[in-house]
Amino acid sequence: MFQYNAVNRPVPLEVNGTPAIPFQGIHQYQPNKTKAAPPVRSCTNYPPDGNKVVDSLKTALLKCNIRDGITISSHHHFRNGDLVMNRVFEVCAELGVKNLRWFPSAAFPCHAPLIKYLEDGTIHHIEGSLNGPLGEFVTQGKMKGLGVLRSHGGRWQAVQDGEVHIDIAILAAPTADPFGNATGDRGPSACGSLGFGLVDSMYADYVIVVTDNLVPFPCIPWQIQGNYVDYVVVLDKIGDPSKIVSGTTQLTRSPDRLYIAELAAKFIDAAGILQNGFSFQAGAGGTALAFAIYVKELMKKKGIKARFVRGGSTKYLVDLLEEGLTDYILDGQTFDLEGVRSIRENRNHVATTPFTSYNWHGKGNFSTMVDVVVLGATEVDVGFNANVVSHSDGKLLHGIGGWQNCLFSKCTILPIPAVRDRIPVIVDRVTTLVGPGELIDVVVTERGIAINPKRTDLIQATKNSGLPIRPIEEIKEEIERLCGGPPQKPEFTDQPIAVVKWVDGTVLDTVFKLKKIPETSLSSGGGD
Amino acid sequence: MFQYNAVNRPVPLEVNGTPAIPFQGIHQYQPNKTKAAPPVRSCTNYPPDGNKVVDSLKTALLKCNIRDGITISSHHHFRNGDLVMNRVFEVCAELGVKNLRWFPSAAFPCHAPLIKYLEDGTIHHIEGSLNGPLGEFVTQGKMKGLGVLRSHGGRWQAVQDGEVHIDIAILAAPTADPFGNATGDRGPSACGSLGFGLVDSMYADYVIVVTDNLVPFPCIPWQIQGNYVDYVVVLDKIGDPSKIVSGTTQLTRSPDRLYIAELAAKFIDAAGILQNGFSFQAGAGGTALAFAIYVKELMKKKGIKARFVRGGSTKYLVDLLEEGLTDYILDGQTFDLEGVRSIRENRNHVATTPFTSYNWHGKGNFSTMVDVVVLGATEVDVGFNANVVSHSDGKLLHGIGGWQNCLFSKCTILPIPAVRDRIPVIVDRVTTLVGPGELIDVVVTERGIAINPKRTDLIQATKNSGLPIRPIEEIKEEIERLCGGPPQKPEFTDQPIAVVKWVDGTVLDTVFKLKKIPETSLSSGGGD
Repeated sequence: MFQYNAVNRPVPLEVNGTPAIPFQGIHQYQPNKTKAAPPVRSCTNYPPDGNKVVDSLKTALLKCNIRDGITISSHHHFRNGDLVMNRVFEVCAELGVKNLRWFPSAAFPCHAPLIKYLEDGTIHHIEGSLNGPLGEFVTQGKMKGLGVLRSHGGRWQAVQDGEVHIDIAILAAPTADPFGNATGDRGPSACGSLGFGLVDSMYADYVIVVTDNLVPFPCIPWQIQGNYVDYVVVLDKIGDPSKIVSGTTQLTRSPDRLYIAELAAKFIDAAGILQNGFSFQAGAGGTALAFAIYVKELMKKKGIKARFVRGGSTKYLVDLLEEGLTDYILDGQTFDLEGVRSIRENRNHVATTPFTSYNWHGKGNFSTMVDVVVLGATEVDVGFNANVVSHSDGKLLHGIGGWQNCLFSKCTILPIPAVRDRIPVIVDRVTTLVGPGELIDVVVTERGIAINPKRTDLIQATKNSGLPIRPIEEIKEEIERLCGGPPQKPEFTDQPIAVVKWVDGTVLDTVFKLKKIPETSLSSGGGD
Repeated sequence: MFQYNAVNRPVPLEVNGTPAIPFQGIHQYQPNKTKAAPPVRSCTNYPPDGNKVVDSLKTALLKCNIRDGITISSHHHFRNGDLVMNRVFEVCAELGVKNLRWFPSAAFPCHAPLIKYLEDGTIHHIEGSLNGPLGEFVTQGKMKGLGVLRSHGGRWQAVQDGEVHIDIAILAAPTADPFGNATGDRGPSACGSLGFGLVDSMYADYVIVVTDNLVPFPCIPWQIQGNYVDYVVVLDKIGDPSKIVSGTTQLTRSPDRLYIAELAAKFIDAAGILQNGFSFQAGAGGTALAFAIYVKELMKKKGIKARFVRGGSTKYLVDLLEEGLTDYILDGQTFDLEGVRSIRENRNHVATTPFTSYNWHGKGNFSTMVDVVVLGATEVDVGFNANVVSHSDGKLLHGIGGWQNCLFSKCTILPIPAVRDRIPVIVDRVTTLVGPGELIDVVVTERGIAINPKRTDLIQATKNSGLPIRPIEEIKEEIERLCGGPPQKPEFTDQPIAVVKWVDGTVLDTVFKLKKIPETSLSSGGGD
């Protein structure tokens, strides 16, 4: 059963056995419900000396009533260096448990060994961002259930609102005490913040903390509070530090991308956004990092100080903080070792969570207060709609990250190449709709800057700036002439392989299985 | 309808219209329910620029749908210096609202002006610790509803478990930003921690932050998260700093009490508790402070360092931290300006909340991990049962504070004078049962130390210590001989005026109205 939603995309009315609501428009859906209500526990049933350590993952899972058909969650702060979740599912397979739902905040290439458990029925399906071989598996239509792509804020919303009930949360923790207090900012597997796991700790029936660095109570800071934790498991090694740090935090060397980043920085200056007390967010992609560097130069030249910058933090943001160019870093995830050091040492480098920053079903969030955000995209169309999960060849590439949530900033800029691998990036209609055009203000390419016609204020402010501001249609036509026409449209079957949720839990679009799956992937451009 | 509970105390089966469960024994009651589920909100209905400031308390209350019969909550971190709650109820009276329930974490003498609203029906009744004139009003049987005395942990439990639904929470905040992020550690009305207000922020339908120090977003740290806040109100002055700091933090000068404190310190040394990595909690009362000083001397002499000390913090605990005698202060409330400075400046002075420290309906809490706690009491009986809310004259004196929660420490010591105002403090049966004897390990008086016979380990460890260890009955007989007999039993009517809740929400005892109310109060001895 499919229905066309408010933006004319066909969406299922049921996703993995649960009723789904079609997207109704950015501010149209009003929740009328109460939050999920976890069971009330009693200290009577927990050790009075606070020692919740058990001897193995297997013992912990058995004590947490592991059984067929339940949901196991995890955070992705270890990124491609996670050594925990493969072991968790190995134990589940050993115990003969079937039809599990894995609910990670993201999966990475290191989780490729889980394909065998998707095939043998240990794992029924995965709901969460899928990077690498697992994404490939889903693209090929091999997963039993539907992929559900949620933003970081949407994941919090889904758990908070009871749309996803977590039976057992597995929280890998670089440092923890026997009570379950845990932090990510220190220890041999330090990853910075553990914010993506917070909602799991608060709402799951059972919570297992897994660490390789057990310290005496109290573990300070306690990013995760032991009062939410049932068991603590100590392993020899829970993460590979060299892979915990993101591989995406490399500054771009492409002259085109450097130019795009510079244009974006000049644009926010021309638009009057670059003022004392302003704020910005840039991801960890190469162009975004270059943007941050150009902005820094402008700030220094003009004597401007930011009130806050939003992470994912990198050494570039840490430099801003340490050089006095911003009062605060508000940080959702820590991308490099300088970020980890800073969040551990500097009280003005503050760990945030999807609750504070992104959850749409709260009493406001931080994303709407950010003056300017720069984001990637795989495709943009002439209505400024954007795609971040698939490419114009139709393959499901990766997840949404905080991308949808960031669109709510006061000025959302997509600095993207007009052409990738000789294929135009500006299209007539995005393959998968992930960001509605009314939230995307500016597209910056090496062939010019397009401002959303809705933003007459930005058009007015920059009209005498000398910047190459052009209608998006004109840029599109130019690059199509260069590339020999628009990109070839992929052909899809009727079989859905994933849905894209909007930040309010409604369904924005569906990803269908391709009739023919291309062997190579196009280069990336998605959210972090 | 009264029923005798598991400790033979008559308790009502309904309290203020809600069914109540009689106390079943320390570890007997097992909750079988889910947590309270607050309504799901949407950012759509909150200002995108994050500015939730409205022009007055009245506007905020009207926007929060103030109406007859609802519950308004507040925290007591301003203690006797609170300037907010009287104004809140003035506005309610002006609006003609009736039958409100006030649910403070504690009320103080500064709230005496609220008596007129209890009399005119604006406020129906108060549930929370009652100090001063409001306690007197309840003692006289004049309040319409029953007083409900809960521990700090019990208050969290009651809200978390849905026993108390808060319609509007008023959170006085020494510093806040327009989004509602708030902290108590700075500003002209700085009070240190805001932990007692956290549960209100998480579970109330509506939350109003009231501040006299508005700073630009983000207010760091955010002890209260703006994502739980609906409106922010700015007043000229929300607290009187000279009264925010507790008046109880005066070191005792009484030779008897100094001797008692010294005996208690020597006892924990003799019992082998004073070891590297140990932990203790002492309140802000004069004897407790003296105990902390004697312990410090012993620690220095023996080269011992604590892993953590629990606050209420005072300059005495801050000295321990700054002199390297403890790794951490884990602090529930801040009693003096040195405590405020330290919690603001020192990352090892950590704000805790009733959730981390005291809530019985969590997955463990900190109280059971503390090696030794010293607490006051108004009466103790030969079964080691103790009273902290009334005195042997039957008057309701004050609330429970964290007292019940602290009883779960590994060694609970009551260092109390054997005689107060010429009346024996050790009795045959406490007037009001607040702490069951099986949780109280040692009673230290100027006439000797009594160890609970259950604690054969402590008896064994200290038998050759040379300390004046005696059976409790013997101490009781001696002081009765000195005082000319046991204290006169007060005579009660059948009219209940308050109930005492246990940490699990069951009813431990009932306070009845006296047949004749004495004019003067006995000197205190209760919890903080």
